[in-house]
Amino acid sequence: MKKNVIIGQSGGPTAVINGSLYGVACEALKSADFDHVYGMENGIEGFLNDKFIDMKELKDNGDLELIKTTPSSYLGSCRFKLPESLSDKVYPELFEKFAKQNIGYFFYIGGNDSMDTVSKLSRYAAQIGSDIRILGLPKTIDNDLVETDHTPGFASAAKYVATTVREIAIDASVYDNKKSVTIVEIMGRHAGWLAASSVLARKFEGDNPALIYLPEVAFDPDAFISSVETALETIPNLVVCISEGINDGQGTFICELASDVGVDTFGHKMLTGSGKYLENLVKNRIGVKVRSVELNVSQRCSSSCLSKTDLDEAIASGAFAVQSALAGKTGLMVAFDRISSQPYQMECALKDVNMICNREKTVPLDWITKDGSDIGDAFITYASPLIMGDVAVPKKDGLPHFAYRK
Amino acid sequence: MKKNVIIGQSGGPTAVINGSLYGVACEALKSADFDHVYGMENGIEGFLNDKFIDMKELKDNGDLELIKTTPSSYLGSCRFKLPESLSDKVYPELFEKFAKQNIGYFFYIGGNDSMDTVSKLSRYAAQIGSDIRILGLPKTIDNDLVETDHTPGFASAAKYVATTVREIAIDASVYDNKKSVTIVEIMGRHAGWLAASSVLARKFEGDNPALIYLPEVAFDPDAFISSVETALETIPNLVVCISEGINDGQGTFICELASDVGVDTFGHKMLTGSGKYLENLVKNRIGVKVRSVELNVSQRCSSSCLSKTDLDEAIASGAFAVQSALAGKTGLMVAFDRISSQPYQMECALKDVNMICNREKTVPLDWITKDGSDIGDAFITYASPLIMGDVAVPKKDGLPHFAYRK
Repeated sequence: MKKNVIIGQSGGPTAVINGSLYGVACEALKSADFDHVYGMENGIEGFLNDKFIDMKELKDNGDLELIKTTPSSYLGSCRFKLPESLSDKVYPELFEKFAKQNIGYFFYIGGNDSMDTVSKLSRYAAQIGSDIRILGLPKTIDNDLVETDHTPGFASAAKYVATTVREIAIDASVYDNKKSVTIVEIMGRHAGWLAASSVLARKFEGDNPALIYLPEVAFDPDAFISSVETALETIPNLVVCISEGINDGQGTFICELASDVGVDTFGHKMLTGSGKYLENLVKNRIGVKVRSVELNVSQRCSSSCLSKTDLDEAIASGAFAVQSALAGKTGLMVAFDRISSQPYQMECALKDVNMICNREKTVPLDWITKDGSDIGDAFITYASPLIMGDVAVPKKDGLPHFAYRK
Repeated sequence: MKKNVIIGQSGGPTAVINGSLYGVACEALKSADFDHVYGMENGIEGFLNDKFIDMKELKDNGDLELIKTTPSSYLGSCRFKLPESLSDKVYPELFEKFAKQNIGYFFYIGGNDSMDTVSKLSRYAAQIGSDIRILGLPKTIDNDLVETDHTPGFASAAKYVATTVREIAIDASVYDNKKSVTIVEIMGRHAGWLAASSVLARKFEGDNPALIYLPEVAFDPDAFISSVETALETIPNLVVCISEGINDGQGTFICELASDVGVDTFGHKMLTGSGKYLENLVKNRIGVKVRSVELNVSQRCSSSCLSKTDLDEAIASGAFAVQSALAGKTGLMVAFDRISSQPYQMECALKDVNMICNREKTVPLDWITKDGSDIGDAFITYASPLIMGDVAVPKKDGLPHFAYRK
């Protein structure tokens, strides 16, 4: 008897997390090896409440093609941490539900918290002798997963950041009769990959953004003010890019100098306001016109700057996951191995999910230059090929036509 | 002896203000009626400092074609208010400079402050018997100029707002297990045209954004909280759109309830933080998860959501201005008369600039529904045709390729 497939999405959305879903669903739906292909609604949390849909219906009604270019998690997401103890009653409960739905293949698309789920489920499966094949697919705009060259979702977010910073820089330059500082706050709690991508916005040597600060290097407000003053001498309308997570190197985020912060369900500090804090600092210490711009959620949900490379790779990771599961693989995450940067060549690989979950890959320190205020060529060589190629998003009445669950 | 043409840009940038520049420059450069075609750097203020460039050089080096899809003011802008008294010495100074450069035609692209410049220069020209023809071209994302159906720049900004709000709404909907409120703050000081455009993001009846607030109707925080509570009953992940300029109807902006504000050089209050204020209000009064997103400068400088209708009209307004000047017209602004909405037909017209400057067109009150918390069908009929059609922006290395002054 053929087994069924189930796919889930977890963690924060990206512009191509549905590309991965599309990749898994298309590959599984065209295979004769499976019976049904299900999608969990709101990840493992929804599945525990018996909420799932049949992906074939989406193929039949045309939504599957639309999903490909729909940002955010079509199936819905969750932030649900499975208990550390595999003796918890949720594990037999879940595997009874898998058995009831005749699930033989479980695919989970997410970041390192989601890989924690893949790790626990595959370890529990091994413990009870279940033959369900459990695989993770990477997803995060933060690009902070280890054991992979990069993650789907990062490149489109990086392209959004670089495009938007380039536009903000020309917007900032229209009045040349007075000096100004624009501070752009970019997502990235502990890893500065996205803020680093703002360097791609430079059109020529000496162009904006002139200063870029990442969480990887301790942020010194005095050195920052000094660098801004120096930069203003040659660039009257200065653009500075910062990660939301810039910190003093001792565990205190710069935004915490200004205001209280909360924590999310995983205990992560919820950040806001590093840009606003620096805006006030520049206003008080230098006295020039200053504004801060928070790029906010569009970094992860804009469909306007989809990288074709990113979307193609997300879809490929899905197809590769299905093929790997059919070949008997389990407890692994699909990863990207870079063969070369020029010309850009990438291939899919499988890595032990236990080596990935709950770890974070930060920007190498030797890719950060000028005492932590700029990004070097090694990053540009790394990131440039990832943002190549555009994707035409279907339009209706002048606006992007997205799939959504009815 | 042939006369020269000079073009300037003034006020805040838009995504298609360079489309108007392109329209004037192309039409003037292909005509045998003119000698040089100049562009003022940083508007009238730069011209007073003898800063201008020869537009033919841009045609020759290929930048003119790139300008068409480059957002923000290529020539640079200014916020320079000419003195009220036409006896001020700046007027003879300017006209001496016009004479020195053999200027016969003066085109100024801007909003109502810029039309004030056109008004004063044309009145002074009449007073001294100058035959320089002085015409204004409309530009503003705010869409607040009177005597014209709409203004170039509004439609692309509206398309950006509707696209981004639709994306934010699907981003907000991925976690369905708890209620949330997302407040989107949209540009618009006294006129709510852009915030109203967020209604175009709705994919179906009852979709987000469920509540929309404009400056045209007095904002009542208690009624707002009550509407949010009611809406949350059917829409667990609620998106609310507000104009930055929502106010109590008595002259106090909502953001002023939270913090001090400054004024710009025209004495306009500089706003920030209405969204942040309402975020805190919802947190304290309702206690659900809440965030605020400020769409910020990308509304006026993003090239990602260019409306082809908008860009075509901006270019057409430039060509029409040149033809009108050649026909002897002066002291007028190019305006758009709508012939019909379905099918959409527009034609260029000329209006007395004195009737336009320093006035503001707000959203008609009968287009605002549900006690000021929603937008009616009349607005949708008005705005829908304006956002139609996409524009392919030239790309280089995966990013938009913009023209810039070297």
